[in-house]
Amino acid sequence: MSEARVDDLVSGILDGEHRALARAITTIENREGGYRDLVSALHAHTGDASVIGVTGSPGAGKSTLVDKLAKQYRDRGLTVGVIAVDPSSPYSGGAVLGDRIRMASNVGDMDVFFRSMSARGQLGGLSTATADAITALDAFGKDRIVVETVGAGQNEVDVVRTADSVVVLVQPGSGDDVQMLKAGILEIGDVFVVNKADMDGAATTVSDLREMLHMRDGSPAGVAGHHGVASMDDDTDADSEDWDPTVLETVATEGTGVEELIEVLDDHYAHLRETGELDRRERTRYAEEIRQLLRSDAADLLEAEIDRHGGLDALVDEVQARETDPYTVADRVLEPFADCVDRRRG
Amino acid sequence: MSEARVDDLVSGILDGEHRALARAITTIENREGGYRDLVSALHAHTGDASVIGVTGSPGAGKSTLVDKLAKQYRDRGLTVGVIAVDPSSPYSGGAVLGDRIRMASNVGDMDVFFRSMSARGQLGGLSTATADAITALDAFGKDRIVVETVGAGQNEVDVVRTADSVVVLVQPGSGDDVQMLKAGILEIGDVFVVNKADMDGAATTVSDLREMLHMRDGSPAGVAGHHGVASMDDDTDADSEDWDPTVLETVATEGTGVEELIEVLDDHYAHLRETGELDRRERTRYAEEIRQLLRSDAADLLEAEIDRHGGLDALVDEVQARETDPYTVADRVLEPFADCVDRRRG
Repeated sequence: MSEARVDDLVSGILDGEHRALARAITTIENREGGYRDLVSALHAHTGDASVIGVTGSPGAGKSTLVDKLAKQYRDRGLTVGVIAVDPSSPYSGGAVLGDRIRMASNVGDMDVFFRSMSARGQLGGLSTATADAITALDAFGKDRIVVETVGAGQNEVDVVRTADSVVVLVQPGSGDDVQMLKAGILEIGDVFVVNKADMDGAATTVSDLREMLHMRDGSPAGVAGHHGVASMDDDTDADSEDWDPTVLETVATEGTGVEELIEVLDDHYAHLRETGELDRRERTRYAEEIRQLLRSDAADLLEAEIDRHGGLDALVDEVQARETDPYTVADRVLEPFADCVDRRRG
Repeated sequence: MSEARVDDLVSGILDGEHRALARAITTIENREGGYRDLVSALHAHTGDASVIGVTGSPGAGKSTLVDKLAKQYRDRGLTVGVIAVDPSSPYSGGAVLGDRIRMASNVGDMDVFFRSMSARGQLGGLSTATADAITALDAFGKDRIVVETVGAGQNEVDVVRTADSVVVLVQPGSGDDVQMLKAGILEIGDVFVVNKADMDGAATTVSDLREMLHMRDGSPAGVAGHHGVASMDDDTDADSEDWDPTVLETVATEGTGVEELIEVLDDHYAHLRETGELDRRERTRYAEEIRQLLRSDAADLLEAEIDRHGGLDALVDEVQARETDPYTVADRVLEPFADCVDRRRG
């Protein structure tokens, strides 16, 4: 994409053209040439949207809830962008078809902008691509941005964890609790929604959830550090400014509970702002974005160097044959970079 | 450490001097100058030991079982090295004291070499340091190397997952199952040992475990990929050559079941060799070691560059103030490396 075309897209987005927004997100999703310049240019115009991550296992009713949430926001005069992220799908075919169905059944209002994104190439890249799409929606001027995941695994956690508010959907009696434990979703949820609350077992699920959340905020069980020093994995959010995760019931198909959800989300956002946590989360997000970019860009440089040495398999062959060893291999591959730094310093 | 001193240590180890081995492992644990050369030199003499990882929550009886296991191996004329790894402790004080107690209560035979290691600095480094200590024990000529962790969290998983055989200890009625699910330990265990099998609830724990393992080998539940394409996180070990994880009962304090455990471990090792899995695991281990070293060495180079730009906090400040953006920051920090590669190619 030419520099002029990037400029066109940027001004299109700032002028509120949905076509430019759609084109920009495609560029971002496909990592087309120019996407870095595009996101760089849009960044200066961000900072006004609040970002809501919605996760939960397939079948919990996420898309229905997100549709109702978007409609409710529209009724309140707010504009909405929705990104449905599918980390498990390397293809976009299905997702695009899904889009059309979703869009047809949607509010029928272009002020709800809906887009799905799938994993092309590395999964690590999807968090970055999602962050970039959020940047585009934010710069466009959307008031609320909802990031919805297809499943509830580790990759989904990575995608939603940097949202301002994380909503976790749970289906009664689904064994979702175990899956959530595995994925670490329990740790990142700000609001837990037991959807399909008219199903049998909803009350049990609500109380199970409350108990698990209670455990979460209590002692971190077994694996914790000695000597009063918390291990690096521990959350250290046990102070009085902490948000007490809310458990809500909804029946998304009927819209029941959606207004309450919006109120809780508003409360959470107000809490984030008042405690300075919003600012801290933004800083954490940017720090992680920078680190993630540095890691993946550096990994690209490293891959190129590994290839120049015949590829990782060839290096492993040598190590396995005891012709060389991992440290010598690492030194050899990194030598040009280390030299380079030395030379610039010397 | 001087080059000559490294050479001394290496020949000491190859001559079977326990004092040299102890000194080498201290050098490795503390990442003292010369440790890279030391491990590099020892690598050529490795490949004969089999490595057994033992994990499980605190109180499950790991140290007692490992002691009995070591004694049993000694009775069979095999030499043993034990490394007890504590990822949660940044200090060595407690560990060293623990060592002395363990050593006193031990087989009283220097052919069981016991050492504990704790996390100094980065946790990622502990897997590497453990791998390096294994290299030293292997080069020394130990027949069996047991790596025992203190707890059963994610960091412990990282430490033991590259062992030839992974033993997971479970205490009856302890709720260990949930912790194991969280940490992903269920996925990596080759042998599951319900210790304290004379306690109430042992039979239930055994059957619960069998059921969970059955689920593990069945469909990976909920989060799996679409389109018949497995997600990147799926294990693809569903072929007929698979090892069927064994569940055993022991009462380590009385030595009950320890012989059976050794037989199962022998069976597992034979299975690994016959199926070519031993070779594959070694390759995977070396590939991971190389990647881990490249990552941490590259991260060091990156950190130095970030510092040269005033530190990550300063960069985040600029991004938050919209003076710059994450992509521009990444480009700026990596510029010298990218230039360097270009220059060497051009």
